[in-house]
Amino acid sequence: MNESSSTSARMNRRESRFMRALRREPVDQTPIWLMRQAGRYLPEYRATRAKAGDFLTLAGTPELACEVTLQPIQRYGFDASILFSDILILPHVMGLELSFTPGEGPKFARTIRHPDDVRNLPTPDPMNETRAVMQAVELIRQELPAETPLIGFAGSPWTVATYMIEGGSSKDFAKARRFLLQQPEAAEHLIQHLARCTTDYLLAQVASGADALMLFDSWGGVLSPSLFHRFSLNGMKSIVQTIQQQHPDVPIILFAKGCAFHLEALADTGCQALGIDWTTTLSDARRRVGDRVALQGNLDPVVLTSSAAVIEQAVQDTLDDYGEGPGHVFNLGHGITPDVPPEHVDVLVETVRNYRSGKLTPST
Amino acid sequence: MNESSSTSARMNRRESRFMRALRREPVDQTPIWLMRQAGRYLPEYRATRAKAGDFLTLAGTPELACEVTLQPIQRYGFDASILFSDILILPHVMGLELSFTPGEGPKFARTIRHPDDVRNLPTPDPMNETRAVMQAVELIRQELPAETPLIGFAGSPWTVATYMIEGGSSKDFAKARRFLLQQPEAAEHLIQHLARCTTDYLLAQVASGADALMLFDSWGGVLSPSLFHRFSLNGMKSIVQTIQQQHPDVPIILFAKGCAFHLEALADTGCQALGIDWTTTLSDARRRVGDRVALQGNLDPVVLTSSAAVIEQAVQDTLDDYGEGPGHVFNLGHGITPDVPPEHVDVLVETVRNYRSGKLTPST
Repeated sequence: MNESSSTSARMNRRESRFMRALRREPVDQTPIWLMRQAGRYLPEYRATRAKAGDFLTLAGTPELACEVTLQPIQRYGFDASILFSDILILPHVMGLELSFTPGEGPKFARTIRHPDDVRNLPTPDPMNETRAVMQAVELIRQELPAETPLIGFAGSPWTVATYMIEGGSSKDFAKARRFLLQQPEAAEHLIQHLARCTTDYLLAQVASGADALMLFDSWGGVLSPSLFHRFSLNGMKSIVQTIQQQHPDVPIILFAKGCAFHLEALADTGCQALGIDWTTTLSDARRRVGDRVALQGNLDPVVLTSSAAVIEQAVQDTLDDYGEGPGHVFNLGHGITPDVPPEHVDVLVETVRNYRSGKLTPST
Repeated sequence: MNESSSTSARMNRRESRFMRALRREPVDQTPIWLMRQAGRYLPEYRATRAKAGDFLTLAGTPELACEVTLQPIQRYGFDASILFSDILILPHVMGLELSFTPGEGPKFARTIRHPDDVRNLPTPDPMNETRAVMQAVELIRQELPAETPLIGFAGSPWTVATYMIEGGSSKDFAKARRFLLQQPEAAEHLIQHLARCTTDYLLAQVASGADALMLFDSWGGVLSPSLFHRFSLNGMKSIVQTIQQQHPDVPIILFAKGCAFHLEALADTGCQALGIDWTTTLSDARRRVGDRVALQGNLDPVVLTSSAAVIEQAVQDTLDDYGEGPGHVFNLGHGITPDVPPEHVDVLVETVRNYRSGKLTPST
């Protein structure tokens, strides 16, 4: 594909359901994609994963990352695709040495505990140290249907910092939360450094072909409001503002799990959309953020483990709860779980597709 | 102590700071107690625990449970005492056989997976099957300063059910959440059964000497709003209503962690107070529930691991955030953690005590 046809394809994608919904423009039907749509619930994913051997090889080999990214698009025709990668690739290339032990989640060989650890963190060149990610983005862009937008993503600075401080997953984030209180200046430097590197990383994804971006703040919800503002929100805000200045037409979605308390503040960052988890309602979120941002979500993932009838009803309830008017991207309230039968996702997608188009006359 | 002096002591306790604050009546200073105040951060607790050998022996031996319950009162002079026990004692005496493996948390030998498991659950007689708990309540009441109110407690039906279904602690409560969707009728029966047994259990604690009651809904926050209402809220509401009818002067505090979205609905159960976790603000909670209920909380427990200066500031911020007027019981937003130096709790208590009395003129 030559450059001008690629530019025209990008312009066409800007008019896709997903991109229009993020701009709160009318759509013929609610766009849908699922967090972790390329995942273990799909037999074809498990096959590619087995071929790769381990998770880091899968994420780090552009052809394999591309293969699993496309699988759910081929199977379900989702309205958006999301890069297959991991939020911990960035600290990995900063030298913390990520590994995945089966059943134990991510582990870092090195952790951040002292101000010196923060000072010594390098600033990766995303086109160099994370070249495989950018190659994957390019390849996915080539292989995807021209009309399907591709979402790039990263973890929020605070969420990535929790893993860097704890050394892996955590039950109560005690070390990371203590670090904020006991070494607040080092913590701020860490967040600022991660914000800068994450901005570079996301800009490189845009340069490689991402149409939209998403920031995952998985663990903002463990912080008190004052710590959330100082350490989680500020980090995300600086990323959003820098990227928006350079790419005003690349929408950014913030997904801050367990942070319903902060929806207004999150909407005020300048992002285009908020991901909403399943523990709140879209109608309440909408009432609170008004028409500042689009909303993405928020079906309880556990619904997909139940029956077709329960899924249909819950999907309709979610669409009804959002109500009329533009600005809704259908999604789960969290990632799809490995125990979901793939045919249940067919029921989900069909129910969204069969819902009254454009939300002008919701089914009752 | 004869019956009439015991009755008069109980009447006097009704005029204590803690009980007055729960009724939203003016107090000379904000009452304070801490969730898990009898806990591993205290060397005297660790000594008694070592003497007992294991947790179930400690909780199941009235003299030892009394000893640890009184330790924080003796050391800090808290305004309320809370029975030392566990929310899983009730399913344990229902035959699920609780054990604690060091480092792994609670485990049940039997779990609830089928409607028959629910049907076969017995209805314990609290004065018989949980006699040790009631003896502990009586003994604590005798040993406590006459003016110090004693809080009895239980887990919410949903929270207790999660452990019964999962068989122990869980990371994502997948089995428990699936049970609600796949076997909703059995789940409702389980919740109703637990609500009835919990009501009996709490009424027996009142008969044994508890002045106030608290329900812990530790895991309501993992549910979608519709499941929360159907399974968590309804169970708590039925307990509150039955106890309120029989004991209108025994206040009930609901602590639903991670459930800030539901504060209005929780206040509407008829309870006297809501425990507020550290991820929201007292001022926001107060704005939303108005003068319907008192509020208890909500200092981030991690603050107690920092320095005296940080603790003083955070405590003042919490008191300022609640603002003027009655109805505040100072507490943490979650249980105190084992890594807190006991002298930091002195700083906390002194800061609350030195705050302008009666909240008429907050310090600035």
